[in-house]
Amino acid sequence: MNEFNSNRKQTFAPSVVISGVSPAVDGGRYPVKRVVNESVDVEVDVFKDGHDLIDVALLWRKAGDETWTEVTMHSLENDRWAASVRFDEPGRYEYSVAGWPELFETWKGEFIKKHDAGQEDLSVEIAEAALLVRGAARRARRGGDDEVAKELVRMAELLPTLSVADVRELLCSESVGSVMNTWADRKLITLCETVYPVIVESERARFSAWYEFFPRSAFGDASRHATLRDGVPLLDHAKRMGFNVVYFPPIHPIGEAHRKGKNNATNCEPSDVGSPWAIGGATGGHYAVEPALGTVADFVWLCDQARERGLEVAMDFAINCSPDHPYVKDHPDWFFQRPDGSIKYAENPPKKYQDIYPLNFHCEDWRNLWQEMKNILMFWIDKGVRIFRVDNPHTKPVAFWEWMIGEVRSEHPDIQFLAEAFTSPKMMQTLGKIGYSQSYSYFTWRTNKKELTDYVTELTKTDMAEYYRANFWPNTPDILPFELWNASASKFKIRAALAALMSSCWGMYSGYEFCENDPFPPKEEYNNSEKYQLVDRDWNAPGIVEFIAKLNGIRNAHPAFHEYANLEFVDCENSEMIAFAKRSSSGNRVLVVVNLDDTHSQQTNLSVPMEFLGLKDNAPYDVEDVLNGETYTWQGRVNFVALSPHDRVAHVFVVRQRV
Amino acid sequence: MNEFNSNRKQTFAPSVVISGVSPAVDGGRYPVKRVVNESVDVEVDVFKDGHDLIDVALLWRKAGDETWTEVTMHSLENDRWAASVRFDEPGRYEYSVAGWPELFETWKGEFIKKHDAGQEDLSVEIAEAALLVRGAARRARRGGDDEVAKELVRMAELLPTLSVADVRELLCSESVGSVMNTWADRKLITLCETVYPVIVESERARFSAWYEFFPRSAFGDASRHATLRDGVPLLDHAKRMGFNVVYFPPIHPIGEAHRKGKNNATNCEPSDVGSPWAIGGATGGHYAVEPALGTVADFVWLCDQARERGLEVAMDFAINCSPDHPYVKDHPDWFFQRPDGSIKYAENPPKKYQDIYPLNFHCEDWRNLWQEMKNILMFWIDKGVRIFRVDNPHTKPVAFWEWMIGEVRSEHPDIQFLAEAFTSPKMMQTLGKIGYSQSYSYFTWRTNKKELTDYVTELTKTDMAEYYRANFWPNTPDILPFELWNASASKFKIRAALAALMSSCWGMYSGYEFCENDPFPPKEEYNNSEKYQLVDRDWNAPGIVEFIAKLNGIRNAHPAFHEYANLEFVDCENSEMIAFAKRSSSGNRVLVVVNLDDTHSQQTNLSVPMEFLGLKDNAPYDVEDVLNGETYTWQGRVNFVALSPHDRVAHVFVVRQRV
Repeated sequence: MNEFNSNRKQTFAPSVVISGVSPAVDGGRYPVKRVVNESVDVEVDVFKDGHDLIDVALLWRKAGDETWTEVTMHSLENDRWAASVRFDEPGRYEYSVAGWPELFETWKGEFIKKHDAGQEDLSVEIAEAALLVRGAARRARRGGDDEVAKELVRMAELLPTLSVADVRELLCSESVGSVMNTWADRKLITLCETVYPVIVESERARFSAWYEFFPRSAFGDASRHATLRDGVPLLDHAKRMGFNVVYFPPIHPIGEAHRKGKNNATNCEPSDVGSPWAIGGATGGHYAVEPALGTVADFVWLCDQARERGLEVAMDFAINCSPDHPYVKDHPDWFFQRPDGSIKYAENPPKKYQDIYPLNFHCEDWRNLWQEMKNILMFWIDKGVRIFRVDNPHTKPVAFWEWMIGEVRSEHPDIQFLAEAFTSPKMMQTLGKIGYSQSYSYFTWRTNKKELTDYVTELTKTDMAEYYRANFWPNTPDILPFELWNASASKFKIRAALAALMSSCWGMYSGYEFCENDPFPPKEEYNNSEKYQLVDRDWNAPGIVEFIAKLNGIRNAHPAFHEYANLEFVDCENSEMIAFAKRSSSGNRVLVVVNLDDTHSQQTNLSVPMEFLGLKDNAPYDVEDVLNGETYTWQGRVNFVALSPHDRVAHVFVVRQRV
Repeated sequence: MNEFNSNRKQTFAPSVVISGVSPAVDGGRYPVKRVVNESVDVEVDVFKDGHDLIDVALLWRKAGDETWTEVTMHSLENDRWAASVRFDEPGRYEYSVAGWPELFETWKGEFIKKHDAGQEDLSVEIAEAALLVRGAARRARRGGDDEVAKELVRMAELLPTLSVADVRELLCSESVGSVMNTWADRKLITLCETVYPVIVESERARFSAWYEFFPRSAFGDASRHATLRDGVPLLDHAKRMGFNVVYFPPIHPIGEAHRKGKNNATNCEPSDVGSPWAIGGATGGHYAVEPALGTVADFVWLCDQARERGLEVAMDFAINCSPDHPYVKDHPDWFFQRPDGSIKYAENPPKKYQDIYPLNFHCEDWRNLWQEMKNILMFWIDKGVRIFRVDNPHTKPVAFWEWMIGEVRSEHPDIQFLAEAFTSPKMMQTLGKIGYSQSYSYFTWRTNKKELTDYVTELTKTDMAEYYRANFWPNTPDILPFELWNASASKFKIRAALAALMSSCWGMYSGYEFCENDPFPPKEEYNNSEKYQLVDRDWNAPGIVEFIAKLNGIRNAHPAFHEYANLEFVDCENSEMIAFAKRSSSGNRVLVVVNLDDTHSQQTNLSVPMEFLGLKDNAPYDVEDVLNGETYTWQGRVNFVALSPHDRVAHVFVVRQRV
């Protein structure tokens, strides 16, 4: 029965053509991405020469397994076949396709046509059927089903004694069809030449709201360095705002040599705390915790505190070494060495980053270096870390990440990786292809209606949707985009609403909820950036905390926001307003309208996508604004909306047909 | 230098990412098609992590060769690289891509930036350059260029003694750049994981005008069977009409058993000549010639006569056997055997084709059967045949054709195959992918403007253009389409003009030039089809012979018609008129307008595609109607044309900017 499970050399040439498998990333070179219980809807072209009917099976297995599991594919039009499969636990899977001529069904089709055409002598056709039935009997016996085998033999013996009409009734019965299908002759089975990989992750890989803060700033007092154990109130703060991931910049010892001062100054004061991304000091490197923050045990304790609050801690994996990192002494050959014996620091001429030594991933000892990088991750995974936010992955070889992520996931299938690559599109896409769960995105700089529409369309309507999950961040510690320079609270609300409602993955860096907007011109950076210093911040200020909490609350409550590529833009005339709908596979339907203008009220007619939202053209329907707490009854496609930046920047309508 | 030519195990991990190679059919699974000296314009995404500059090479070789030839690729925007390659003789080739960090260029870029920024101490940078130069010297020495090696060593010694400005002048000189590039360090070279095949054929695979006739009808007298040696006047007729391929239905012995009579009657008269596609009789099978036509030697003689006239004879390869075929006796196991010991004839229930036994390509002895099929082709190739028109390839396994065409071409790279598959799109496309030079097409049934536009757009603007060359036939011996039932001479001219001018490959079956239009309703077939009988036909009647000759003459004279995918539709308001432009890589530009209405005059404004035709927006240009012999001077985009079915059905303008 499972011919495709045996490895025997194919005795026969391929009988069917199998091509055009979808979904597939670069023809199967890279995996498609799913979360647990999310459907992979496979389609494929399968066809045979001549007139024989064929059967087609979707095959799937866990990567590394030999044995395929089979799912019957059904025929669409134009030689296309379809079937779906879901995976109920994280891991790497594979799918492929097999097809074969269905001899009994072909026989039946011809027999019926001849009978219907009044052909009288069908004795040879019936003898052919008897042969087919005997063949099935043999396969049933070999397959261990002696009872069915005997029954089939009896049937084969009976056939020549029956009238044509009786043969037809018997052999075209559903029960005989089913048995013949179970024991079908698959001698001429053809296997697809390609095996298509799938990465399955837990739901959080697709649906997450990130909150980034510096544990050392937990006091909000620039004169007091907080420890990890002081971080609990900020976990509560994140929880109150509805986030489900908290992310800390690197917590490792910070280098002293060439430590950067405030605002990235080359010289630092003795009191300067340094950038957490300059990793490694006298107390250790990537396996250690900065003494001012505490210990590895403190970190584990804080992670547990977070988990108790429904928050997962994401750890920063930044492959930079300060000149004080232990590797510099222990493995100088892992760095770029210069003719004068010094180690090459990071440069982007004429800029010098003397506090950071990049590693040479193609050094002679690269295999040990790569292994060591894996050891770091395994160390922290062992401590309970499940999510890594990877710093600047685009400055390390893609081949390294593909190897590393594959290695880690082969032992821990549910480890998630967020790629912090703000670089050229092809590199960002490729990091998605090779396995990053999520990626930072250009959302940060996509501000007007056309930019947002084009970008989100590219993300969700092209094959990027199969491998690239864009995490929408309106800010990061490195980036205060022009759009937010000295911006209003309304603008902060607008950008948060767009991030949180367009993508199922969004994140913000702390201070955003307090509308911190002080730039460091001409750079799109923060003045007095928290990267280099402790900051004064009133963690209890109202800011837009309530608004952020509402956004995340709505996301959490409505499954349409849990899926990624389910967005459909909605026509609205006003170019200062953007509207889109989302619907979940479970049937939840939402319609979002955002006023992009933070200074003027805007109004527009919307063209509600009735079909997408499952609405009947002329029946009334309710739209409940879960952001602002009002419900309207609409009818038909065109409806009017107005939004004021001072009052409400967006509508988030849950759409329900009236009954 | 040619690191990619050695098979040594890669010591280093891939340093660059290579993806998105185009052109590629199904990711390189199938070849792209070209003719000799036609360019393959390869593009690919190649990029590296970090800031290093990279070099990229397009690699190509003859299939089967080990050694790659290298073509430098140049950088487009967004990590895309491009280079072109042409092949000057028919055969199977392969291309791929390699990329590597360009250490010396990277060094230069950083050095210049630092120098420009006024950095004073660059001694370590200069020492780095000396190391790079010494490395190049070592590679030059290993590569056998001792002189260059010595010069480079001298340069490396000199460098520390020079001023920074002098170092810059020396190392940034073109000559040093060129030497350093020749002996570049390619230790970290990355090869594309995929090798992309190309089939290169002679020009005729892309540009051909086919004329099909039955040699037995050469007398045009239903009472006299002509021999092959009587066929010369028809060669002259084809030549006069400007064709370059003549195609004969099968010339093999025709079976007697169950021979079909006139109009496909089940019973035949003793005088009936039978269908040439029921192959095999007492005098032999596929290696023999029907005695009524002559001998193998006569066929060879006729082929020579054709070649002397600039015509190539295409042979029909029809894998059907009549019940009298020698295989039936010698290899009954090659057929489908029934339980009563009989051999299964072709059926499409309730229709029976008792004069034809299909072969079973998946029989136990399939390898010998396949080999025998190849032997048939090799036999005729040995007799001088260079083109095969394959009958119903879609009723034999695709895998068989892929094997067969590959086998034949590995010995005779320039053998051409035309697939006569009128079936579902995917099968037709796949036969193109696996190697058929040309394919029959749906043109026969695409008659109105929208159908023609959609179909030709699909053929020329999708990736079908890489592998599928559609041959446009307005009729065949099997098909008199509804459009031509009792149709006017104007309609015959219109359909011929569309076929001949839209595709670089077209063909017609004899009788078309005499507007034979008598249908056999309800089938789209000819009444008294020549398939089953000799026909009366006045080969010297005027018909539309002159018009066909003009069409082919124009095709032959204007290179724009020699290329396949170079068609651009031209907007014209009138839905009864169709207009398109073509331009050749050599600069020849034509504009065709056809009136699809064979009963009324039609007129329209055309929107001339100025840019496509290389015209300046406001300068006047000449359009010479080479079909009707008039020249007009036009200016600007919008111009008026009128066509009468009685007078002229089309304009074929050669477009020239006025000087």
